[in-house]
Amino acid sequence: MRGHTMEDLTPEQIAAAADLYGPLAHRVRELVAATVLTEVDAPDVAKALELIAEATALLQTKALDDSFGVRWNSEGKRRTWGNAVVGLRNPVAPPLEIRHADGLAFADVTLGPQYEGPPTLVHGGVIALMLDQVLGDAAVEAGVPGMTGTLTVRYRKGTPLGALRVQARVDRVEGVKTFVTGEIVVDEAVCVEAEGIFILPKEVRGLGDSPPPELLAPGD
Amino acid sequence: MRGHTMEDLTPEQIAAAADLYGPLAHRVRELVAATVLTEVDAPDVAKALELIAEATALLQTKALDDSFGVRWNSEGKRRTWGNAVVGLRNPVAPPLEIRHADGLAFADVTLGPQYEGPPTLVHGGVIALMLDQVLGDAAVEAGVPGMTGTLTVRYRKGTPLGALRVQARVDRVEGVKTFVTGEIVVDEAVCVEAEGIFILPKEVRGLGDSPPPELLAPGD
Repeated sequence: MRGHTMEDLTPEQIAAAADLYGPLAHRVRELVAATVLTEVDAPDVAKALELIAEATALLQTKALDDSFGVRWNSEGKRRTWGNAVVGLRNPVAPPLEIRHADGLAFADVTLGPQYEGPPTLVHGGVIALMLDQVLGDAAVEAGVPGMTGTLTVRYRKGTPLGALRVQARVDRVEGVKTFVTGEIVVDEAVCVEAEGIFILPKEVRGLGDSPPPELLAPGD
Repeated sequence: MRGHTMEDLTPEQIAAAADLYGPLAHRVRELVAATVLTEVDAPDVAKALELIAEATALLQTKALDDSFGVRWNSEGKRRTWGNAVVGLRNPVAPPLEIRHADGLAFADVTLGPQYEGPPTLVHGGVIALMLDQVLGDAAVEAGVPGMTGTLTVRYRKGTPLGALRVQARVDRVEGVKTFVTGEIVVDEAVCVEAEGIFILPKEVRGLGDSPPPELLAPGD
């Protein structure tokens, strides 16, 4: 499948790559926030532009052509490091680190100024972005994965920038459809509720209990 | 209201600020994409880290404390430059430039690797993010603005990374609720459909035809 790449990497090599590119993305996230907030004058902006252009050119000297996609090693370990929500090497991603316990998928995250919509609040679309990922992940973890069919988000009240939790669990499965519910929680109060319907792609239906791992992508 | 700032800036000063900080954000977007795609080795990553840290520190020498918020000048001109979708100085934002014609709000945008979800496709949550903004903007433009109450997104097929259109129009108004529909279109094919219900905040109901402009924020 397009965008799926098999790589003959050992777990140690994968860990080394994470240690190399993860901190880079983290630094770029800090730069992103500083870009939103800065009030420096033209000479300092010009100097920053030069530094940023130099860093960019350096990183581009050896690079993938189009997108990161999903990468696998021979042990079936899956890397979605370019993902816009969970990608450890994607500076747009907060990134969410999704954990699992007792059927719940959840992530605790702190959102900075680059995720603002209404003043001082998280952008409603950023909330939908995170919920799509965590709901899809809950479906994967429960063994009933799919692509997002429908996502419905109900905003109960504004979600302040800062610390929040995104959580989800599978509600029920009906044929090829997995129904997942989730919330955004701040200080134990639910700010947003969501329901997602994730649909098993036609390509993998009827493959039995063991569809090929590359098709078990989160429903994002 | 918190996060709303009045500034005594002339249109010329605002244009100068856009010319100063807009290109900075654009350069950081290029760096973000390069960070996702780079395959350079450790010494080059280390050098890039240094350059990025230096640029960040420079930008932080004079900066806002928390978030950009919404800024107004004495002529009522509104700036949402920190917004996660349309913010001209927010590197997370593509940014969308929303236009209006015959009741339609629309934006043509090209999405790079930092917006990936499934391999080679736009993240479903990024799609929801853009739709939330454009649907809300259509409500504002039609004079029936609100905060997002419910957003429903139906994914018909995958949306490839690259060029796409986001579009929306007001379907109907029922009391304090504005119903807006929209789509993601690629090569004239609809990949995603959405409906949003935008609700006029309680604070501004009953204020007549002229609620204060700072409350007419897009429903994002």
